[in-house]
Amino acid sequence: MELPQKGDGFEFNTSLREVVQSTKEAMVALQRKNPAIQPLLVIIQAGEDDNLLEINKKIAGRIGLNITQICLAKECSEDEIVEEVLKLNEDPRVHGVYLHLPPACLTSRVLNTLKPEKDVDGISDLNMGRLVRGDLSKGFVPPLASAVLDLLEKHDAPLEGKTVFLAGGEGPLGVALQCLIERNGMVAFKSHWSSNSLQRQVMQADAVVLLGPGNMDVPPTWVRPGAVVIRCEPTLETDEHAIEISSKSGLGFLTAAYRTRNVVHSCSRWIQEQQYRPWHLRSLKLQPLTPVPSDIEISRAQTPKPVDQLAEEIGLLPEELEAYGRSKAKVQLSLLDRLHTQPDGKLVLVAGITPTPLGEGKSTVTIGLVQALSAHLKLNSFACLRQPSQGPTFGVKGGAAGGGYAQVIPMEEFNLHLTGDIHAITAANNLVAAAIDARMLHEATQSDKALFNRLVPSVNGVRKFSPIQISRLRRLGINKIDPASLTLQEVSTFVRLDLDPSKITWQRVLDTNDRFLRKITVGQASTEKGQIRETGFDIAVASEIMAILALADSLEDMKNRLARMVVGTSRSGQPVTSRGPGGVSGALAVLMKDAIKPTLMQTLEGTPVFVHAGPFANIAHGNSSVLADKLALKLVGRDGFVVTEAGFGADIGMEKFFNIKCRASGLRPNVVVLVATVRALKMHGGGPNVSAGAPLPREYIDENLSLVAGGCHSNLRKQIQIADVFGVPVVVALNVFKTDTQAEIDLVCQLAKECGASDAVPCHHWAQGGRGSIELAQAVNEAASRPSNFQFLYNKEMPIVEKIRTIAQRVYGADDIELSPEAGAKIDYYNQQGYGTLPICMAKTHLSLSHMPDKKGAPTGFVLPIRDVRASIGAGFIYPLVGTMSTMPGLPTRPCFYDIDLDPVTEEITGLF
Amino acid sequence: MELPQKGDGFEFNTSLREVVQSTKEAMVALQRKNPAIQPLLVIIQAGEDDNLLEINKKIAGRIGLNITQICLAKECSEDEIVEEVLKLNEDPRVHGVYLHLPPACLTSRVLNTLKPEKDVDGISDLNMGRLVRGDLSKGFVPPLASAVLDLLEKHDAPLEGKTVFLAGGEGPLGVALQCLIERNGMVAFKSHWSSNSLQRQVMQADAVVLLGPGNMDVPPTWVRPGAVVIRCEPTLETDEHAIEISSKSGLGFLTAAYRTRNVVHSCSRWIQEQQYRPWHLRSLKLQPLTPVPSDIEISRAQTPKPVDQLAEEIGLLPEELEAYGRSKAKVQLSLLDRLHTQPDGKLVLVAGITPTPLGEGKSTVTIGLVQALSAHLKLNSFACLRQPSQGPTFGVKGGAAGGGYAQVIPMEEFNLHLTGDIHAITAANNLVAAAIDARMLHEATQSDKALFNRLVPSVNGVRKFSPIQISRLRRLGINKIDPASLTLQEVSTFVRLDLDPSKITWQRVLDTNDRFLRKITVGQASTEKGQIRETGFDIAVASEIMAILALADSLEDMKNRLARMVVGTSRSGQPVTSRGPGGVSGALAVLMKDAIKPTLMQTLEGTPVFVHAGPFANIAHGNSSVLADKLALKLVGRDGFVVTEAGFGADIGMEKFFNIKCRASGLRPNVVVLVATVRALKMHGGGPNVSAGAPLPREYIDENLSLVAGGCHSNLRKQIQIADVFGVPVVVALNVFKTDTQAEIDLVCQLAKECGASDAVPCHHWAQGGRGSIELAQAVNEAASRPSNFQFLYNKEMPIVEKIRTIAQRVYGADDIELSPEAGAKIDYYNQQGYGTLPICMAKTHLSLSHMPDKKGAPTGFVLPIRDVRASIGAGFIYPLVGTMSTMPGLPTRPCFYDIDLDPVTEEITGLF
Repeated sequence: MELPQKGDGFEFNTSLREVVQSTKEAMVALQRKNPAIQPLLVIIQAGEDDNLLEINKKIAGRIGLNITQICLAKECSEDEIVEEVLKLNEDPRVHGVYLHLPPACLTSRVLNTLKPEKDVDGISDLNMGRLVRGDLSKGFVPPLASAVLDLLEKHDAPLEGKTVFLAGGEGPLGVALQCLIERNGMVAFKSHWSSNSLQRQVMQADAVVLLGPGNMDVPPTWVRPGAVVIRCEPTLETDEHAIEISSKSGLGFLTAAYRTRNVVHSCSRWIQEQQYRPWHLRSLKLQPLTPVPSDIEISRAQTPKPVDQLAEEIGLLPEELEAYGRSKAKVQLSLLDRLHTQPDGKLVLVAGITPTPLGEGKSTVTIGLVQALSAHLKLNSFACLRQPSQGPTFGVKGGAAGGGYAQVIPMEEFNLHLTGDIHAITAANNLVAAAIDARMLHEATQSDKALFNRLVPSVNGVRKFSPIQISRLRRLGINKIDPASLTLQEVSTFVRLDLDPSKITWQRVLDTNDRFLRKITVGQASTEKGQIRETGFDIAVASEIMAILALADSLEDMKNRLARMVVGTSRSGQPVTSRGPGGVSGALAVLMKDAIKPTLMQTLEGTPVFVHAGPFANIAHGNSSVLADKLALKLVGRDGFVVTEAGFGADIGMEKFFNIKCRASGLRPNVVVLVATVRALKMHGGGPNVSAGAPLPREYIDENLSLVAGGCHSNLRKQIQIADVFGVPVVVALNVFKTDTQAEIDLVCQLAKECGASDAVPCHHWAQGGRGSIELAQAVNEAASRPSNFQFLYNKEMPIVEKIRTIAQRVYGADDIELSPEAGAKIDYYNQQGYGTLPICMAKTHLSLSHMPDKKGAPTGFVLPIRDVRASIGAGFIYPLVGTMSTMPGLPTRPCFYDIDLDPVTEEITGLF
Repeated sequence: MELPQKGDGFEFNTSLREVVQSTKEAMVALQRKNPAIQPLLVIIQAGEDDNLLEINKKIAGRIGLNITQICLAKECSEDEIVEEVLKLNEDPRVHGVYLHLPPACLTSRVLNTLKPEKDVDGISDLNMGRLVRGDLSKGFVPPLASAVLDLLEKHDAPLEGKTVFLAGGEGPLGVALQCLIERNGMVAFKSHWSSNSLQRQVMQADAVVLLGPGNMDVPPTWVRPGAVVIRCEPTLETDEHAIEISSKSGLGFLTAAYRTRNVVHSCSRWIQEQQYRPWHLRSLKLQPLTPVPSDIEISRAQTPKPVDQLAEEIGLLPEELEAYGRSKAKVQLSLLDRLHTQPDGKLVLVAGITPTPLGEGKSTVTIGLVQALSAHLKLNSFACLRQPSQGPTFGVKGGAAGGGYAQVIPMEEFNLHLTGDIHAITAANNLVAAAIDARMLHEATQSDKALFNRLVPSVNGVRKFSPIQISRLRRLGINKIDPASLTLQEVSTFVRLDLDPSKITWQRVLDTNDRFLRKITVGQASTEKGQIRETGFDIAVASEIMAILALADSLEDMKNRLARMVVGTSRSGQPVTSRGPGGVSGALAVLMKDAIKPTLMQTLEGTPVFVHAGPFANIAHGNSSVLADKLALKLVGRDGFVVTEAGFGADIGMEKFFNIKCRASGLRPNVVVLVATVRALKMHGGGPNVSAGAPLPREYIDENLSLVAGGCHSNLRKQIQIADVFGVPVVVALNVFKTDTQAEIDLVCQLAKECGASDAVPCHHWAQGGRGSIELAQAVNEAASRPSNFQFLYNKEMPIVEKIRTIAQRVYGADDIELSPEAGAKIDYYNQQGYGTLPICMAKTHLSLSHMPDKKGAPTGFVLPIRDVRASIGAGFIYPLVGTMSTMPGLPTRPCFYDIDLDPVTEEITGLF
């Protein structure tokens, strides 16, 4: 399109040329950097097009700006306008909205429904207030005001210090103009058209601006010689007379040009918003009490920030958040796309020495560390935690939200349903189980033909395969699409999975400690026609689907993994997958579509936490999710930290983190924090047995430096060496208990460094919160600045047996492994099936480096027995069983829930830890 | 406190007296109406108190306004201020916040963090914009501006038409003042203190207002004789000199008085906000297509309103909403307190004639009716629906969100996890089950002493009972609190429930159609030491906890009901409750604390829907929750409608709705909508069998008026008569299918009215949405205006057998009932236990009015056999079994989930109906 010419009804002046030119340049620059983005102005109009719209379209065309018109009826209702505005608000392709509507339509509701960031005419109350206060970093100057100001400034005689009179300037536009004029060093005054002193005011002014509405005019005789007159009656701008009066011309074009400039501006701001934003985290103050109150008392005494506010502070966009109540929200995976060019932060793994049965506080160290990093050292950090099973919460273990002054809050939300992920896993897992048994029943009681008629029913006389059935046919090598064309043999192959009931490996799950379901017989009702079999329930977090959730790195990856899960073996010895029993994997993905999004919560000091996944450490890898780590690494930014926790001791949790989770995710750790306690070190140094419920022996209460030294030289040294095998620097965090003496603390820190730790520091987060872990945070920050030479322990191409042997020898310190015949046969079978390159997930006791829970310290001279070998093909690992692993905890005689209660008036929970 | 006097440093003038007086009166009026409310102004200050604070306190004291001061350090950070402001924002007791801070602290972030409705100084951008636009219905006039204007207006010589000069008026306050002055008919102009023309401007003015900051002044010689000078330098107001200059005095006091007026105003607005608000529902447009697309295509084509916006439209407060993502939210029960004086709307029950196995569309009628009422007749209405079980969703039944153009959206959310209520029920139900079995194991394998030591352990040498244990002791008649004081017999009584394993009635549940769990043997693992027993799983919605959720009318009521649930019988024949097995009921209430809040969703036309509870109609009462109905009845207002659905035919669902749900809730229905279809009527008129999956016989496709007439004269007439027994007017809704002929439709409507219906109309909601149900909506509105003479069918004091007989004879049309010996014995036992006054919940087939599914029409001359009788004591009903009721559905050979899939890129679900 050509530049507008005189013939188009206006004199094309310098201002217009300049604004068009500079806006065009801004547009080109913007699109060069962001080729996929096309700024868009939407005009909502009532009735037919008019000249003003033509002008806007011409200018936009000149600049290369897209315009969309929404034409409502002349007598449209407020609701109709609001509905359109709401749609435009939500549409990320729209960067500016121009409400070209009669004044009566511009109600308070309409004006303030429009998102201020799209209000390029600057007419919403918020944008007007910003203008009045002089804050133009967010709002927009009304284009007409910009145009008038431009004309005033460009006038031949500079107006600095001169007087501008705004006739009819009592509306918001007049106020905006006056503010701008005054800020530019002129004096502005205004009055109604009906004012008695109109003539006097016009005569006094160096410039007169005539503002609408109406067709008001001032006689030329009133105007002081040499004074400028600018007419702003919007519907008259192409009128010859008006152009003459305005003396400079083209106000409509100039206004349109400034509007496009605002749209380009708005688009730039939007692009800016999409970029990585530095955090402005507001930490919550902690005032720790002595003695330290109960966990739930501490949790309840702190008011969490609203989760949408926390999200805003750490640079999440509102549309990336799905709130679940006020204190937790799911975060959408689209964040990974938005920030894909952003460098990752540093990944810190918290692992532990071999623990006592009481646990050594890895969760509290993790939370204390991020509290210290974020709230005290002002370094961005994120904790990635596992979601705890509700079973142990009501059973014996207690909460998993940390403890003391290092907790995730609200801890009752964390420990209960959270955002329903585990429930989704239960539903998905059990749908597979129900599908398997129902399928076996239907196959056992129906002929091939009956099965085929039911699986491929005739609908209105037409019989056809579903897409999922066609892909099953393909996998079976039957390339037909007409059901009638299958041979009897092909029908039989198609309709029968022919599962071997004695070789179903899929178990049902419940998120309840229900020991009576460990081994059960199902199908005993007469309706199941004698198809009974033995099976059992696991705790929900032991489901392979949980392991998949933890390892998936996208929705698609999760869906593929769900389809690969092997649920049993056919009578002909072939593995049967969840895709097999009639395509249940699509339904599984549907059930899991929300569970794949990590849940955002916060620590007691208001620093961010992701809670996501929690595979059972006994038989799976026991780490929180790959996706939570990935999202967090983007959010913390290059110099930030993501602190993630591994289950059990470093020999198990850390080894799996490295060999399974890092392999699956491509993530590389920068630092390992190895948690130790004086109590556990004394045990490894030869102290008596420790058991839950029983009082601690004296050795653990009184100072005993030789036991401490013994533990450091055995278990602590060995665990440091394991991390060393992977090439990652180790910081030892001594989780200090009140019975620890200074000499003991000093000794641990000294010996840990002698054993090869980069650093070793005591931590007091339980009693003091983040302040008590500052030293640890500094040590981690320091260690993370050193090069990490991470390497896997084994190549995935290594034979399964060799992989197991490598772990046993180089991590556990075993002389060798010993395979049972059953284990050997399984390995052969997995190799045949092409599963030989999967990584290994050892199912071994966490109470010793060896397979013998009583052998503390760093046992040597033992041969690790491999009793059996199993596989989680969907999750993607082989898990050898070293001893018997319980997959369903029980309730003790006095379970936690005896003390749990709810006050029906205050809705407060009591007794939850 | 006395009124300020001259000696206090100012001349007390008329304005101040008037403002104080009128504010005080407003305050008294407000508190007379709302005695519990005390308006509160909070002042955030930096550093010590100053004179200005003293003035504010004096004035507030005079008015009776409470003031709280928050004193931050002089050098406080922005974060500290923001933190305090955020707390005040959330505190409903605070009605106004005055940020008495140095200008440097009043950053954009601080100003705009404060909620505009508490910004009584009117300094936030939004409030400033409102003022500029002249919309004072929501914001506040800055008190200083009010005070200045007041002084100008009260001046001896009226200033109308005069000129006011604002020196130093370039900031927002100047703009506000200028707007107000101009709006009051004066001319205002302003300039910087540094302006060259300051002297000229002062000399021209009739009034001069001197605005801060700084100690600027104008020489008295500049001021025109007779002109007013008002000095607004805020920190100088009690300075003698300033008072003299301001010529009228007391600006500081007057400002403080206007601030208190704004606080009282703010408080009144807040009270107003708490009142019932008329709806301003924005309905979503529907453009139905022909042929009607699949349910999920229709659902996906409509964009639901954000749920917070829907909530706002129907008068919910933001703090009453807990969003779960963007399209669903839980609503807090506190709403019932807030609106307790609001009259209820009208309650409409949708029931049906005896259905075919294909269902006759009660859900679509319910949804179509509210779409018509709200979106077309503009009468407030709410649908209250049951949450569907996920089992049938993946099995055979299909969705429960309605269908065609009468649906709840997004339908996939409705049909999947929703807000997790059913998962919470599953968790709670199975915790009880695990507790029972674990308890039996522990009792079977431990001595009294061992049990006692574990149940009442010694903690740090002290042994004491928990509160729950003390109440158990009380119930057992042991009034002791020292564990050591119990006799051996008392210890045994205390530690043993002595459950009879063969008389455990509590089943486990899963929300999966898993038929193999109908009858199982548990405890077969060696760890359970041979304590095996037979039991089974029900579908989760069959749990008694679901029935309790549906009938509870408060958190406390739910908790009490959970504690009353009977789980089995002791060996001595006493019922054992869930409170018994070690106090699990507190934990159950904790698990259910969120489930008790109904979930808000919307129809395709954007009208509100509550989804809450869904007890299994086979063995429970099959209605949505009492709480959803109660909340909705408050929200719709006196002339609004709540439409709630009963399960199965009217003989079952409606009878239970009246006798169980209405009895428990105290709610009284105004109208019954009885849904009929030509198809079902033909079946009752003698048409051939109809079954799911099989093609419909010709009789159902071709016109057949005699079959239709037969159905009307039998089943339809009988169902209308049943409603008549309860005294509630009936509107018959004929759910029209495309095969129905006009003659058939006309015949049904004519005969229905002859059979006693108030009205009978055809409905086309499935194909047309709300527009297709306008006639029904009008008929319901008309019927609801007639008196309803609701009465229960039986008195609860009637003996159990008589209650059963009454239902059988008066509702089903049986000659009599016949009790099995087992049923008789159970009834005797329940009477002994004091359960005799509970209402009856018949477990009967829904496919016939009789117990014989094949007997269509209105069978007579039969005796209803009562095979067994059971009880849900927590839910509060006795349920006689007429025949065998399945409580665990199975999967068909070709279940729904075969077609369900998820597109991993678009995240769209396919194949879900």
